[in-house]
Amino acid sequence: MPFDPASLTYDANGLIPAIAQDALSGDILMMAWMNAESVAKTLETGRVTYWSRSRKSFWVKGETSGHVQRLREMRVDCDRDALLVLVEQEGPACHTNRRSCFYTAIRDGEEVEILTPMED
Amino acid sequence: MPFDPASLTYDANGLIPAIAQDALSGDILMMAWMNAESVAKTLETGRVTYWSRSRKSFWVKGETSGHVQRLREMRVDCDRDALLVLVEQEGPACHTNRRSCFYTAIRDGEEVEILTPMED
Repeated sequence: MPFDPASLTYDANGLIPAIAQDALSGDILMMAWMNAESVAKTLETGRVTYWSRSRKSFWVKGETSGHVQRLREMRVDCDRDALLVLVEQEGPACHTNRRSCFYTAIRDGEEVEILTPMED
Repeated sequence: MPFDPASLTYDANGLIPAIAQDALSGDILMMAWMNAESVAKTLETGRVTYWSRSRKSFWVKGETSGHVQRLREMRVDCDRDALLVLVEQEGPACHTNRRSCFYTAIRDGEEVEILTPMED
Protein backbone atom coordinates (compact mmCIF):
# COMPACT_ATOMS: atom_id res chain seq x y z
CA MET A 1 0.00 0.00 0.00
CA PRO A 2 1.45 3.42 -0.90
CA PHE A 3 2.21 5.49 2.17
CA ASP A 4 0.36 8.79 2.55
CA PRO A 5 1.40 11.15 5.39
CA ALA A 6 -2.24 12.29 5.58
CA SER A 7 -3.17 8.76 6.74
CA LEU A 8 -1.40 9.30 10.08
CA THR A 9 -3.19 10.47 13.21
CA TYR A 10 -2.05 13.91 14.31
CA ASP A 11 -2.85 15.65 17.58
CA ALA A 12 -4.95 18.81 17.96
CA ASN A 13 -1.94 20.86 16.80
CA GLY A 14 -1.44 18.71 13.70
CA LEU A 15 1.64 17.02 15.16
CA ILE A 16 2.84 13.46 15.66
CA PRO A 17 5.70 12.40 17.96
CA ALA A 18 8.79 11.04 16.22
CA ILE A 19 11.36 8.94 18.07
CA ALA A 20 14.87 9.00 16.59
CA GLN A 21 16.89 5.82 17.08
CA ASP A 22 20.52 5.36 16.09
CA ALA A 23 20.38 2.80 13.28
CA LEU A 24 23.79 1.42 14.24
CA SER A 25 23.82 1.30 18.05
CA GLY A 26 20.07 1.12 18.69
CA ASP A 27 20.35 3.99 21.19
CA ILE A 28 17.42 6.37 21.44
CA LEU A 29 18.73 9.78 20.49
CA MET A 30 15.78 12.14 20.90
CA MET A 31 12.06 12.63 20.54
CA ALA A 32 10.59 15.54 18.62
CA TRP A 33 7.51 16.36 16.57
CA MET A 34 6.52 16.30 12.92
CA ASN A 35 3.55 17.57 10.98
CA ALA A 36 2.34 15.96 7.74
CA GLU A 37 4.56 18.15 5.63
CA SER A 38 7.69 17.41 7.64
CA VAL A 39 6.94 13.68 7.37
CA ALA A 40 6.77 14.12 3.58
CA LYS A 41 9.97 16.22 3.51
CA THR A 42 11.82 13.67 5.62
CA LEU A 43 10.91 10.88 3.21
CA GLU A 44 11.62 12.95 0.09
CA THR A 45 14.96 14.37 1.19
CA GLY A 46 16.30 11.61 3.43
CA ARG A 47 17.14 14.33 5.97
CA VAL A 48 15.10 14.10 9.13
CA THR A 49 12.94 17.22 9.33
CA TYR A 50 10.93 17.99 12.44
CA TRP A 51 8.48 20.75 13.19
CA SER A 52 9.79 23.16 15.80
CA ARG A 53 6.94 23.97 18.17
CA SER A 54 8.82 26.93 19.68
CA ARG A 55 9.91 28.47 16.38
CA LYS A 56 6.81 27.32 14.47
CA SER A 57 8.91 26.33 11.48
CA PHE A 58 10.51 23.32 9.85
CA TRP A 59 13.57 22.10 11.64
CA VAL A 60 15.94 20.26 9.34
CA LYS A 61 17.97 18.51 12.00
CA GLY A 62 21.59 19.63 11.84
CA GLU A 63 21.00 22.40 9.30
CA THR A 64 22.81 24.93 11.46
CA SER A 65 24.83 22.65 13.76
CA GLY A 66 25.95 20.14 11.12
CA HIS A 67 24.65 17.34 13.34
CA VAL A 68 22.41 15.94 10.63
CA GLN A 69 20.22 12.88 10.81
CA ARG A 70 20.14 10.83 7.64
CA LEU A 71 17.03 8.70 7.41
CA ARG A 72 17.57 4.98 7.17
CA GLU A 73 13.96 3.98 7.68
CA MET A 74 10.69 5.41 8.93
CA ARG A 75 8.25 3.20 10.84
CA VAL A 76 4.65 3.78 11.90
CA ASP A 77 3.04 2.31 15.01
CA CYS A 78 -0.19 0.28 15.21
CA ASP A 79 -2.35 3.30 16.08
CA ARG A 80 -0.64 5.42 13.42
CA ASP A 81 -0.07 8.13 16.02
CA ALA A 82 3.66 7.73 16.61
CA LEU A 83 6.69 7.46 14.32
CA LEU A 84 10.07 5.81 14.70
CA VAL A 85 12.91 7.09 12.53
CA LEU A 86 16.04 5.01 12.27
CA VAL A 87 18.86 7.42 11.55
CA GLU A 88 22.53 7.83 10.92
CA GLN A 89 23.40 10.58 13.37
CA GLU A 90 26.31 12.91 12.73
CA GLY A 91 27.87 13.85 16.09
CA PRO A 92 25.62 14.69 19.03
CA ALA A 93 21.83 14.62 18.65
CA CYS A 94 21.29 16.80 21.73
CA HIS A 95 21.69 20.57 21.89
CA THR A 96 23.78 20.01 25.04
CA ASN A 97 26.35 18.31 22.79
CA ARG A 98 25.56 14.89 24.17
CA ARG A 99 25.00 11.99 21.83
CA SER A 100 21.46 11.46 23.16
CA CYS A 101 18.94 13.74 24.84
CA PHE A 102 18.13 10.94 27.31
CA TYR A 103 21.22 11.41 29.44
CA THR A 104 19.51 11.55 32.84
CA ALA A 105 18.69 8.23 34.50
CA ILE A 106 16.61 7.74 37.65
CA ARG A 107 18.51 5.36 39.92
CA ASP A 108 17.41 4.70 43.50
CA GLY A 109 15.25 7.82 43.39
CA GLU A 110 18.13 10.06 42.33
CA GLU A 111 18.85 11.74 39.01
CA VAL A 112 22.13 10.50 37.58
CA GLU A 113 23.85 11.93 34.51
CA ILE A 114 24.97 9.02 32.37
CA LEU A 115 26.37 10.81 29.31
CA THR A 116 28.88 13.63 29.08
CA PRO A 117 29.07 16.18 26.25
CA MET A 118 31.02 15.01 23.20
CA GLU A 119 34.34 16.60 22.24
CA ASP A 120 34.12 18.88 19.21
CA MET B 1 19.42 15.23 43.08
CA PRO B 2 16.26 13.40 44.20
CA PHE B 3 13.86 12.85 41.32
CA ASP B 4 10.42 14.42 41.61
CA PRO B 5 7.79 13.54 38.96
CA ALA B 6 6.37 17.06 39.40
CA SER B 7 9.64 18.44 37.96
CA LEU B 8 8.80 17.05 34.50
CA THR B 9 7.09 19.12 31.81
CA TYR B 10 3.62 17.80 31.01
CA ASP B 11 1.40 18.84 28.11
CA ALA B 12 -1.92 20.68 28.41
CA ASN B 13 -3.56 17.38 29.39
CA GLY B 14 -1.00 16.70 32.11
CA LEU B 15 0.70 13.99 30.06
CA ILE B 16 4.25 13.17 28.97
CA PRO B 17 5.19 10.72 26.19
CA ALA B 18 6.98 7.57 27.33
CA ILE B 19 9.00 5.45 24.90
CA ALA B 20 9.40 1.80 25.89
CA GLN B 21 12.62 0.15 24.75
CA ASP B 22 13.47 -3.52 25.18
CA ALA B 23 16.38 -3.49 27.64
CA LEU B 24 17.85 -6.62 26.08
CA SER B 25 17.46 -6.17 22.31
CA GLY B 26 17.29 -2.37 22.16
CA ASP B 27 14.13 -2.60 20.02
CA ILE B 28 11.55 0.13 20.46
CA LEU B 29 8.40 -1.60 21.65
CA MET B 30 5.79 1.15 21.92
CA MET B 31 5.09 4.74 22.83
CA ALA B 32 2.35 5.70 25.28
CA TRP B 33 1.60 8.42 27.81
CA MET B 34 2.07 8.94 31.53
CA ASN B 35 0.87 11.54 33.98
CA ALA B 36 2.80 12.48 37.12
CA GLU B 37 1.06 9.83 39.17
CA SER B 38 1.77 7.04 36.68
CA VAL B 39 5.43 8.09 36.60
CA ALA B 40 5.50 7.75 40.39
CA LYS B 41 3.65 4.40 40.30
CA THR B 42 6.04 3.05 37.66
CA LEU B 43 9.05 3.90 39.82
CA GLU B 44 7.45 2.63 43.05
CA THR B 45 6.16 -0.67 41.70
CA GLY B 46 8.68 -1.47 38.96
CA ARG B 47 5.70 -2.23 36.70
CA VAL B 48 5.37 0.20 33.82
CA THR B 49 2.11 2.09 34.30
CA TYR B 50 0.78 4.39 31.60
CA TRP B 51 -2.23 6.66 31.54
CA SER B 52 -4.87 5.47 29.10
CA ARG B 53 -6.19 8.51 27.25
CA SER B 54 -9.17 6.57 25.89
CA ARG B 55 -10.19 4.95 29.19
CA LYS B 56 -9.00 7.87 31.32
CA SER B 57 -7.48 5.51 33.85
CA PHE B 58 -4.17 4.00 34.87
CA TRP B 59 -2.97 1.29 32.54
CA VAL B 60 -0.67 -1.15 34.27
CA LYS B 61 0.85 -2.67 31.16
CA GLY B 62 0.02 -6.38 30.98
CA GLU B 63 -2.42 -6.35 33.91
CA THR B 64 -5.09 -8.11 31.85
CA SER B 65 -2.97 -9.60 29.03
CA GLY B 66 -0.08 -10.82 31.17
CA HIS B 67 2.29 -9.00 28.82
CA VAL B 68 3.89 -7.02 31.59
CA GLN B 69 6.73 -4.55 31.33
CA ARG B 70 9.18 -4.66 34.22
CA LEU B 71 11.09 -1.44 34.60
CA ARG B 72 14.83 -1.67 34.31
CA GLU B 73 15.48 2.06 34.16
CA MET B 74 13.66 5.32 33.54
CA ARG B 75 15.42 8.15 31.73
CA VAL B 76 14.44 11.79 31.23
CA ASP B 77 15.36 13.90 28.20
CA CYS B 78 17.10 17.29 28.18
CA ASP B 79 13.84 19.24 27.98
CA ARG B 80 12.24 17.05 30.64
CA ASP B 81 9.24 16.57 28.35
CA ALA B 82 9.83 12.98 27.22
CA LEU B 83 10.62 9.74 29.03
CA LEU B 84 12.45 6.60 28.00
CA VAL B 85 11.69 3.42 29.91
CA LEU B 86 14.01 0.47 29.49
CA VAL B 87 11.94 -2.63 30.12
CA GLU B 88 11.87 -6.37 30.30
CA GLN B 89 8.89 -7.16 28.11
CA GLU B 90 6.87 -10.33 28.66
CA GLY B 91 5.61 -11.53 25.26
CA PRO B 92 4.24 -9.02 22.74
CA ALA B 93 4.07 -5.32 23.62
CA CYS B 94 1.47 -4.61 20.93
CA HIS B 95 -2.26 -5.33 21.19
CA THR B 96 -1.96 -6.96 17.74
CA ASN B 97 0.22 -9.62 19.41
CA ARG B 98 3.37 -8.36 17.73
CA ARG B 99 6.50 -7.84 19.75
CA SER B 100 6.57 -4.13 18.85
CA CYS B 101 3.90 -1.64 17.82
CA PHE B 102 6.28 -0.27 15.16
CA TYR B 103 5.75 -3.11 12.69
CA THR B 104 5.04 -1.01 9.61
CA ALA B 105 8.04 0.30 7.67
CA ILE B 106 7.94 2.79 4.81
CA ARG B 107 10.11 1.41 2.03
CA ASP B 108 10.23 2.99 -1.44
CA GLY B 109 7.00 4.83 -0.65
CA GLU B 110 5.14 1.66 0.28
CA GLU B 111 3.97 0.38 3.66
CA VAL B 112 5.64 -2.92 4.46
CA GLU B 113 4.74 -5.12 7.43
CA ILE B 114 8.00 -6.23 9.01
CA LEU B 115 6.74 -8.15 12.07
CA THR B 116 4.17 -10.92 12.31
CA PRO B 117 2.05 -11.69 15.38
CA MET B 118 3.75 -13.90 17.98
CA GLU B 119 2.54 -17.43 18.67
CA ASP B 120 0.70 -17.83 21.97
